[in-house]
Amino acid sequence: MKSTILKSLCLSLAMISSSAALAAADTEPASPRNVILIVGDGMDDHQITIARNYLAGSRGKINLDEMAFRSSVQVLTVDDKDPSKPIYVADSANSATSLATGEVTSRGRISTSAKYDKDLVTIVDLAKQAGLKAGIVTTSSITDATPSSFVAHISQRECENPDMMVDAVIYQRKPVDCSQDVKAKGGPGSISEQLAASNVDVLLGGGMEHFTKQAEGSSKSVLEQAEGNGFYIADSAEKLKSAPAEKKLLGLFAEGNLPERMAYEGEREAEQPNPSMLNYLHKYLGSVEMPDTVKCEPNAAFGDTPELKEMTAVAIDRLSGNKDKGFFLMVESASIDKASHQRRACGQIGELQQLTEALDVALNFAEKNENTLVLVTADHGQAAQLMPDTSLFEAFNLPAYSPGFVARVETPEGVTMAVNYATNGLFAEEHTGVNVPLFANKEGVGRVPTMLAQPDIFNVMTRYLNLN
Amino acid sequence: MKSTILKSLCLSLAMISSSAALAAADTEPASPRNVILIVGDGMDDHQITIARNYLAGSRGKINLDEMAFRSSVQVLTVDDKDPSKPIYVADSANSATSLATGEVTSRGRISTSAKYDKDLVTIVDLAKQAGLKAGIVTTSSITDATPSSFVAHISQRECENPDMMVDAVIYQRKPVDCSQDVKAKGGPGSISEQLAASNVDVLLGGGMEHFTKQAEGSSKSVLEQAEGNGFYIADSAEKLKSAPAEKKLLGLFAEGNLPERMAYEGEREAEQPNPSMLNYLHKYLGSVEMPDTVKCEPNAAFGDTPELKEMTAVAIDRLSGNKDKGFFLMVESASIDKASHQRRACGQIGELQQLTEALDVALNFAEKNENTLVLVTADHGQAAQLMPDTSLFEAFNLPAYSPGFVARVETPEGVTMAVNYATNGLFAEEHTGVNVPLFANKEGVGRVPTMLAQPDIFNVMTRYLNLN
Repeated sequence: MKSTILKSLCLSLAMISSSAALAAADTEPASPRNVILIVGDGMDDHQITIARNYLAGSRGKINLDEMAFRSSVQVLTVDDKDPSKPIYVADSANSATSLATGEVTSRGRISTSAKYDKDLVTIVDLAKQAGLKAGIVTTSSITDATPSSFVAHISQRECENPDMMVDAVIYQRKPVDCSQDVKAKGGPGSISEQLAASNVDVLLGGGMEHFTKQAEGSSKSVLEQAEGNGFYIADSAEKLKSAPAEKKLLGLFAEGNLPERMAYEGEREAEQPNPSMLNYLHKYLGSVEMPDTVKCEPNAAFGDTPELKEMTAVAIDRLSGNKDKGFFLMVESASIDKASHQRRACGQIGELQQLTEALDVALNFAEKNENTLVLVTADHGQAAQLMPDTSLFEAFNLPAYSPGFVARVETPEGVTMAVNYATNGLFAEEHTGVNVPLFANKEGVGRVPTMLAQPDIFNVMTRYLNLN
Repeated sequence: MKSTILKSLCLSLAMISSSAALAAADTEPASPRNVILIVGDGMDDHQITIARNYLAGSRGKINLDEMAFRSSVQVLTVDDKDPSKPIYVADSANSATSLATGEVTSRGRISTSAKYDKDLVTIVDLAKQAGLKAGIVTTSSITDATPSSFVAHISQRECENPDMMVDAVIYQRKPVDCSQDVKAKGGPGSISEQLAASNVDVLLGGGMEHFTKQAEGSSKSVLEQAEGNGFYIADSAEKLKSAPAEKKLLGLFAEGNLPERMAYEGEREAEQPNPSMLNYLHKYLGSVEMPDTVKCEPNAAFGDTPELKEMTAVAIDRLSGNKDKGFFLMVESASIDKASHQRRACGQIGELQQLTEALDVALNFAEKNENTLVLVTADHGQAAQLMPDTSLFEAFNLPAYSPGFVARVETPEGVTMAVNYATNGLFAEEHTGVNVPLFANKEGVGRVPTMLAQPDIFNVMTRYLNLN
């Protein structure tokens, strides 16, 4: 009977699943607390299911599936002209701003407010003020939207280096203008300049091309400015390992984003089904030729790029030296999203695998350091859909095929898995507005509700670290 | 300090999140236990987010969001010719069979095994054998795949009535053959005949057309056979309310599926974007005209059809009379799926709203009857995607549009929500293979892992009811 009573008491406690959980004050921790936030960019449930089928089989499990707690996250975006008006689909800039600052903003903004362009305080700002260590690790350029939103503040995500600030144009079509943020006007400068000037302890990713540019109003490059600000620069896996412990660490392992680990055989992408002439006349006539089934293979371009798990291990090792204060670390597997935009199913799978490996590193640390909250989430949904390879309507003997692009991947269990990309026909697929998953280790139980708005993840983390 | 210790003990208990949770033996309950399983057909996270945006606003919550526990379900399907081979996308027949029997089967099968066509024991079979009451409520025809899988056993879901058993053809294209299951060969007959012959206490939904057919080897209709087997037949909302308590209840409120509550203004469906002539020449040229933004409105055809919440209330009322034994009830909102197949975003939203109302009825009952496990899940994913109404690439001023069909719905918060349907161009969209959500009330905490395979839901339910 006692155990029954205890159990029912426990259920009551464990089920604090509403906003009351967020409001519950944590008492001062006995030993320093750490937060490791792992973000799978674009990693919605389709992405996870696609990767699981490939990596562990249709009945298999990956480490995300074994996490102690699972929740769902409502992604919020507002219109830049009228912030009272919701937009139902986010980009990585505004969703990373939600995670980093607890505030809802408009697409393309890096920790600045919609319409009014006010700088928003980030969890890294708060952590450093409170004497904690802080680090950012990503497989994208470190100046890309997700990583930079935790440190920088600027009106447009494209302003990644000093040359992109005024009169810049992307692909001759998209005008970029961050002229109000230039140093000459008292602004903080471009994203790479803000990172170089920051007091973040560890910054690891790609994006060397944004640091070799000449800094505004200086004869030095942004990289030289970073060195002047106490950063050791690592541009290889070797230098990453041998970086001196007493310096801040800026690791830049590619000119732009890091290469993806896995590629579609023959460097192919998803392809459009090829209908017969008769099918052009009427959609119920004729036949269709589907793209070949293709295997995934290691991406030759990956070479000796540091893996996400290696960067994560180095970051945790350096940040956890802070014995009395703890740390905040954000780790992003960025190219789950980038591969999905460009219809590379194997790229998505390989980068989700990198995320699970980084999660293993984080969970191992958390097991030995009990006051460590590990959260894994996505910033927004992506276009990729796990679709039937054999239509539900096959018995009707009709030419049923996707109007978009289809990747037909042979999984290790010997079955063809079809991934559909059909949100537009241009160079990149769209994001989607679906709720995204949130996973927590046992430290999250009772602290994270079963469903929450994305900015509340900031509140969960800052409350855990006693930063508010 | 005491509360801290209690809390940490409790966390350990509450976090039994692996298969160990499934194995934990429940002791004999003090009062009868009940299970209410609510199935949203095709209700993946896209569907929930789309409905929430409409029903509660982008920052709002619906009752699913406030459930005590949230988990994720791996949907499993196998090839009928080679059951060792997985198929990555299910249909409602094989996924309902997983829920009803704990076994994985192939598409189209109603609680029979892949390849070998063996009858599989359902939770309703077990419940009735153990003296519990049992009921099935749906907005589809009661003979449709999901409801029938809990009671009937047949090789093909299309064999809904005696006329569909031998030499039947659907739309002149799809041959249907359940000749091995005809009564003349010692089989149990068609689905409607099996339901009519069953000992299920409550069967509510549509599908009168499958019961007015002449039963095999009899001068009677299937409906007359049902009456002969002790069923009171209700064919109106009034008769549903006044049904005599001592009889079994068969409610059939439409010839086929029940009408959907909500419709797209002007009975429209999603439409294909209309590109300019120039855009036909090259996808980066020209412009595109998107479908109009349309409001949702009550569906005039709904009339005085009983709502899902009414049917659920009647079912619970009749089943809960079983004071010493408890009950099993399956409630399905079926047309979330059917509306999504046919690109009716408003239909999806209205039927998901019906599910939330039925859930309210179930939760109210569970609050007063503590030994009641309420589970809500979906059987499989659907094509509908919440897509940006304004492309992420709008600043590039390119004709970005879906290659499929788009519904542009004006939400009550005055914003256009775009829903994309792009898995094929034929009469119906495909399902998807994404993991689906599972929600539980507090009785599910510690009994449901954070991720499980769909057949394990059967195990959770039968263990809770001490049926195994």
